[in-house]
Amino acid sequence: MLPKLLERIGPPDEAAAARARRHLDRLTKPPGSLGRLEDLAVRLAALRGGPPAVERPVVFTFAADHGVAAEGVSAYPSVVTAQMVDTFVRGGAAINVLARQAGARVVVADFGVGVPVDRPEVVACRVGAGTASIARGPAMSRAQAVQAIEAGARLAAAAIAEGGDLLATGEMGIGNTTAASALTACLAGGAPEEVTGRGTGVDDATWRRKVQVVRRALEVNRPDPGDGLAVLAALGGFEIAGLVGVILAGAAHRVPVALDGFVAGAAALVAAALAPGARSAMFAAHRSAEPGHARGLAHLGLEPYLDLGLRLGEGTGAALFVHLARAAARLYGEMATFESAGVSGPGPS
Amino acid sequence: MLPKLLERIGPPDEAAAARARRHLDRLTKPPGSLGRLEDLAVRLAALRGGPPAVERPVVFTFAADHGVAAEGVSAYPSVVTAQMVDTFVRGGAAINVLARQAGARVVVADFGVGVPVDRPEVVACRVGAGTASIARGPAMSRAQAVQAIEAGARLAAAAIAEGGDLLATGEMGIGNTTAASALTACLAGGAPEEVTGRGTGVDDATWRRKVQVVRRALEVNRPDPGDGLAVLAALGGFEIAGLVGVILAGAAHRVPVALDGFVAGAAALVAAALAPGARSAMFAAHRSAEPGHARGLAHLGLEPYLDLGLRLGEGTGAALFVHLARAAARLYGEMATFESAGVSGPGPS
Repeated sequence: MLPKLLERIGPPDEAAAARARRHLDRLTKPPGSLGRLEDLAVRLAALRGGPPAVERPVVFTFAADHGVAAEGVSAYPSVVTAQMVDTFVRGGAAINVLARQAGARVVVADFGVGVPVDRPEVVACRVGAGTASIARGPAMSRAQAVQAIEAGARLAAAAIAEGGDLLATGEMGIGNTTAASALTACLAGGAPEEVTGRGTGVDDATWRRKVQVVRRALEVNRPDPGDGLAVLAALGGFEIAGLVGVILAGAAHRVPVALDGFVAGAAALVAAALAPGARSAMFAAHRSAEPGHARGLAHLGLEPYLDLGLRLGEGTGAALFVHLARAAARLYGEMATFESAGVSGPGPS
Repeated sequence: MLPKLLERIGPPDEAAAARARRHLDRLTKPPGSLGRLEDLAVRLAALRGGPPAVERPVVFTFAADHGVAAEGVSAYPSVVTAQMVDTFVRGGAAINVLARQAGARVVVADFGVGVPVDRPEVVACRVGAGTASIARGPAMSRAQAVQAIEAGARLAAAAIAEGGDLLATGEMGIGNTTAASALTACLAGGAPEEVTGRGTGVDDATWRRKVQVVRRALEVNRPDPGDGLAVLAALGGFEIAGLVGVILAGAAHRVPVALDGFVAGAAALVAAALAPGARSAMFAAHRSAEPGHARGLAHLGLEPYLDLGLRLGEGTGAALFVHLARAAARLYGEMATFESAGVSGPGPS
């Protein structure tokens, strides 16, 4: 399934982009005066091959545990991953509030939480009971990486089949900013101390240990940055692999993918390593407070739309971005043209 | 009425701000991880004196013409002001699309369009048939400035009485970025060439003329920057004066005011000159592409929330900001606490 998915990813539709630009210039506003919303509308049109639409967004909040958490890299214990999954299905987490506001459905999936979350609302995509510690060897096997990617891609394809027109990436996993730092260092470059941040808010001593763990993960595993799957298996997480699948499915089906923050950005680096063309489907929702995020986005050639100092994950930044993407699409579709409104163009009074 | 309005403007409620900070730290997320949304929730709580709420926003799109347009400072003829007012009431302008998306009502008011717009949906607040050219003398009399401020304040107070819980400022007026540049230079400092931008998109020759007109307006009028009303009468516009009234009414009633771009920012400078305490009610929705905007916001001590290169006005940036303010308020009100959700706090695993 994965090879077929990768094969299907094509370039943006430049003719659709040109049509979109012409349409935007006929709307009742000075040309270009809607700034980045106009570029956003053009990118959405180029991906879709026609007028943009963002009416039925779906948030994918994937959860899994990380063996590396045992190295003492987080402010919170691993049990919080399962507790937060429980909070997601009860609707009390930040992503629930923001998804409700954005009119988005949240798909909560267990990709490998330490203790399985036995609730019918949680989609079971378990690849294991948490990854192995990346500081001591690979996080998972290559087969497990493929299994998680394909599971994520299947969930995304199902959502698209039901009418989903924007995929938002979210995650929960104590320890996963350590994995994201290692993935970013490997795929986008940068020393461990440059791409490692405070995660949930660790103190100085824990941050120094976290940097050491990232360095060790790179030394122990030495994955080939040209082999995206090898990098993912060595340094990733099950939920990160699931998000790689969501991103690739979005690109293959030409449905936009709103990347959340640092962890989703690391998944995007893996997706781009597997299929550089997938970048056309990626929209960087926001710039995270995590220092490695900017490096990852620069590597992908993406400019974030929001810059609010968020560092929560779950898909929160991506859910906020839905409002901007929907604004771009609706302005494109609902504004009057100079001609239809009888408004004069530029010229002397 | 104006003196009473100014008298009523008080300081933020620091006890409510402290309560809000404590509440935010009990929600199921690492402390501070919602970044600027948390600061936003605290500012809203401090203004309101209790939990924030952004459910019934109202956009005020005020229109008027500017005598200075005859000096050849815009890419569009003055007749476009009236044509766009017509587009606003027919629902085809950018602000209509974005207000619908944000669940906001749009109040369109004629504060002095060259030719009156005779449509029942337009609120008549006419102070004249456009201002006099600020390049040749004062834009309006002091009495006219007060009249427009009070009319704007009355519209805002009526909206608040009907349940409006956020006031968004918008405007339309060919020539009004020239007025905003002169107001910004006078009240926030900066040379005419530093605070004068391209407006609707003028060419180099027109931009140079616009800078000269701004310089002339300052030289001819020489208003005292310490006398906000004198500055407004000398350099303002009727719609700008109306927005000063909206801002002051928001501050007096402790209802947040979302400042749109450069022109609304100039109104905010006047409002702060009249009542420095009004700044607690001001929220800078976005950073406009106009170069003078950043200087005005810095003078007010405000940091914009969005940075999308918008330069349209009408209230478009403020309408987009509604989503962020509502997100901050709903996260505050709807998220579970660590205690209620049974989620562990920081500590070893």
